[in-house]
Amino acid sequence: MADARFFHRAGPFVLADIAAVVGAEALLPDDATVSISDIAALDSAGPDDISVFHDLRYLNALAPSRAGAIIISRKLAHHAPAESRLVYVPDPRRAYAQVGRLFYPPQTLVPVVHASATVHPSAHIGQGTQIDPGAVIGRDADIGERCHIGPNVVIGDGVLIGNDCRIGANCCISHALIGHRVEIETCVTIGSQGFGFVPGPAGLERMLQLGRVVIEEGVKIGANCAIDRGATEDTVIGAGSVLDNLVHIGHNVRLGRHCVICGQVGIAGSTVVGDGVMMGGQTGVADHLNIGSRAQIAAKSGVMRDVAAGSVVGGFPAVGIKDWHRQTTSIARLSKKVV
Amino acid sequence: MADARFFHRAGPFVLADIAAVVGAEALLPDDATVSISDIAALDSAGPDDISVFHDLRYLNALAPSRAGAIIISRKLAHHAPAESRLVYVPDPRRAYAQVGRLFYPPQTLVPVVHASATVHPSAHIGQGTQIDPGAVIGRDADIGERCHIGPNVVIGDGVLIGNDCRIGANCCISHALIGHRVEIETCVTIGSQGFGFVPGPAGLERMLQLGRVVIEEGVKIGANCAIDRGATEDTVIGAGSVLDNLVHIGHNVRLGRHCVICGQVGIAGSTVVGDGVMMGGQTGVADHLNIGSRAQIAAKSGVMRDVAAGSVVGGFPAVGIKDWHRQTTSIARLSKKVV
Amino acid sequence: MADARFFHRAGPFVLADIAAVVGAEALLPDDATVSISDIAALDSAGPDDISVFHDLRYLNALAPSRAGAIIISRKLAHHAPAESRLVYVPDPRRAYAQVGRLFYPPQTLVPVVHASATVHPSAHIGQGTQIDPGAVIGRDADIGERCHIGPNVVIGDGVLIGNDCRIGANCCISHALIGHRVEIETCVTIGSQGFGFVPGPAGLERMLQLGRVVIEEGVKIGANCAIDRGATEDTVIGAGSVLDNLVHIGHNVRLGRHCVICGQVGIAGSTVVGDGVMMGGQTGVADHLNIGSRAQIAAKSGVMRDVAAGSVVGGFPAVGIKDWHRQTTSIARLSKKVV
Repeated sequence: MADARFFHRAGPFVLADIAAVVGAEALLPDDATVSISDIAALDSAGPDDISVFHDLRYLNALAPSRAGAIIISRKLAHHAPAESRLVYVPDPRRAYAQVGRLFYPPQTLVPVVHASATVHPSAHIGQGTQIDPGAVIGRDADIGERCHIGPNVVIGDGVLIGNDCRIGANCCISHALIGHRVEIETCVTIGSQGFGFVPGPAGLERMLQLGRVVIEEGVKIGANCAIDRGATEDTVIGAGSVLDNLVHIGHNVRLGRHCVICGQVGIAGSTVVGDGVMMGGQTGVADHLNIGSRAQIAAKSGVMRDVAAGSVVGGFPAVGIKDWHRQTTSIARLSKKVV
Repeated sequence: MADARFFHRAGPFVLADIAAVVGAEALLPDDATVSISDIAALDSAGPDDISVFHDLRYLNALAPSRAGAIIISRKLAHHAPAESRLVYVPDPRRAYAQVGRLFYPPQTLVPVVHASATVHPSAHIGQGTQIDPGAVIGRDADIGERCHIGPNVVIGDGVLIGNDCRIGANCCISHALIGHRVEIETCVTIGSQGFGFVPGPAGLERMLQLGRVVIEEGVKIGANCAIDRGATEDTVIGAGSVLDNLVHIGHNVRLGRHCVICGQVGIAGSTVVGDGVMMGGQTGVADHLNIGSRAQIAAKSGVMRDVAAGSVVGGFPAVGIKDWHRQTTSIARLSKKVV
Repeated sequence: MADARFFHRAGPFVLADIAAVVGAEALLPDDATVSISDIAALDSAGPDDISVFHDLRYLNALAPSRAGAIIISRKLAHHAPAESRLVYVPDPRRAYAQVGRLFYPPQTLVPVVHASATVHPSAHIGQGTQIDPGAVIGRDADIGERCHIGPNVVIGDGVLIGNDCRIGANCCISHALIGHRVEIETCVTIGSQGFGFVPGPAGLERMLQLGRVVIEEGVKIGANCAIDRGATEDTVIGAGSVLDNLVHIGHNVRLGRHCVICGQVGIAGSTVVGDGVMMGGQTGVADHLNIGSRAQIAAKSGVMRDVAAGSVVGGFPAVGIKDWHRQTTSIARLSKKVV
């Protein structure tokens, strides 16, 4: 059970309502009216809780579970004791996430601009949007409906933010167009000047950075990330992509849709990444590359060349994942022979 | 001598008082009343300064030093000129740190909530605690005694902070229980949502992150770190552990006590790290691993498997440190043969 | 054309004025009075725009370009159609940057301390300096003329900032002396305590960090970087050096002049870096090393030994760049043989 200091539970709900939310198969009539008050893991659930079984790794916890109901797939259902109250769905893990959101809905917004926020008179704040203490909203900024702008967030002049966005505390956003349903954790920079210089007689002179950051709808960005704006083109984060913490995105990078970018990844300027690409933690991608759609890049890789669509690469310099495994095996053998 | 713009010196102190603070051996009677006004390195110290000798690398500076007193161990004392005024301790480096804190005590707190801070009426602020301008303290937050909450810090609803903690400017802390004597530098995120998603028909859907961050007593966290809260379990940073800057800690990670985690390390979700573990800078540790107590992981390693307690590993993928050195040697030789 | 939401264009300017700004060769008399209203890439420029040709990669765009004028070098001029209106300079890329700054000058400052800023009465704010909402300026801080201190920036006690500096939103600066014309992006920490501990009976005890951060004139620092102050010596960032996002600089590091440090680089404590050094993204440099002037370190390198002045190194552990390429080639070959 989640700590009530931090999480506010809704409910209880009868199982029929839960089944409707997740699109489950029809329940047994007796089950439909059972009251469920929380979600819980199999091993900690009690008769008022609903749990989930979706992976044989947790088989040992299934039989002894006291859960009031268990979300499960038809395929795995034969593992459950006959007396279990089962809720059948095709994708139990996703259904469990949906039930979680039912019991722990997002905090209700208080659609007020806090007195200590500084909102430029020309800025537009959509209906139902909450602006927290210390936030600063620039000239001609345009913030959509039902957004939550956290404490001490700084939104620069002209920034456009869609509906139902959540911007975490102490974020700095400038030169950006942000779509609907974007979620950004805390201490994130968006719209900083890119890293472009030209040598002059007195040292490096900055190239103007006249582009923007375009963040498409549904993107989620982790804490303490930094995303530069474009130099002339835009930096783009495609719809539905998710970034973990401390990720660095250089200027003009175009990240596709539904990408998964793990912690501390860095993508250098002007690299174009297709849709559905996955990058493991601490991976670095050099500038001006093309990473094809659905490519998968193992953690800590150093990508120095284009990566073909659908391929799986790893290592530094990154090569096909099988080649990389061969390399690490060969090196291990070699070092035993030589010494 | 430290720059008086930034550091406020106490004292002077007589040597007897200094000896008492560090638990030194009894002084010669004439030495006990010598007045010392500052700390300084051997080569810059004058007759009013106390210095330290703890490493033969600095032997050249010992004889010519004009320091008024030198902290030293019995073992190294024969290197000092006969006329030196010596203060004997078993661990001179630690004693010198203690004397440093005597001359440069932490800034005295001004136990006031600044008028520009926003403190929820239900929050509890302990006696002697200083809340700086622009700080935002959420509903039911509970902050201990003699804490310093820096400017523009955002403390979320329900967060619990122990006594004698120091939270640096612009930090964002949510969903966290923080023990006594915790020090956090600036721009740190604690309690962000972990990186967990499940595919849905319209793209990735976020798994609820219903856990907390538990930071045990005495932990020190560097600037611009990001620590996610747990998904169902808690993310834990064990007592006395120290984290350098820009470290990423994923959800459900359990870090043991007295660990040393250098800059830009990333530890992926659900990995369990024992006590006294050391990780060099830029190391990455994959998810769901076990790192045994007192393991040492060389800088920039990529750890993809469990690490046994007490072992020393390095490289990517990380192997025993001797194996890694063999590997790098073999590769160097090989490349010379082949080409 | 830059998005008018974010960028405010000056002009138009006659070509003679533009030529004067960039130090171009004398124009044809008819060209001198041509009016130019914006900058644009060759392929998007119209008759009112000035463009640039400096790289044969863009040759295809040169002939069809409708640009009203093209900045070009004498050496490349023969590629341009006879009817092009050319502006001759020795370094077209740099001239184009200068013209960019002419059309898109830095935002005019509003030399006001915002009512919601908290400025200590003893602090000194230079003429023409703008202090944004929520900024906090400490005791005896001294900020030069024509500076821009962004929203929610925290400047610690005694910090000294030169003229014409720009400090981005939500930065935290303490224990620092900052020269003229320094630009710092958002969410940057400067002056945090270094990572130095000594074992004590109850765990690690912090070594005092009594040094400062000295940032020399013209330095540019990217978003979300963290720079520790020195332990006894200072941490120094030499004049004209540029740091990309999420860079970590340990205590006592001395970085030379005109260095280029790419994203997510980490430099550990007490390492001394010469002038004009370049480090690729995600490079890590161990502590207490010497990196000679004009050394170049490839991206993602792990530098564990001193690097000679002028040398080019790469890999992990970093070796001469040719050796590293040989190593990666050898490994690739080896793994094909062995398996």
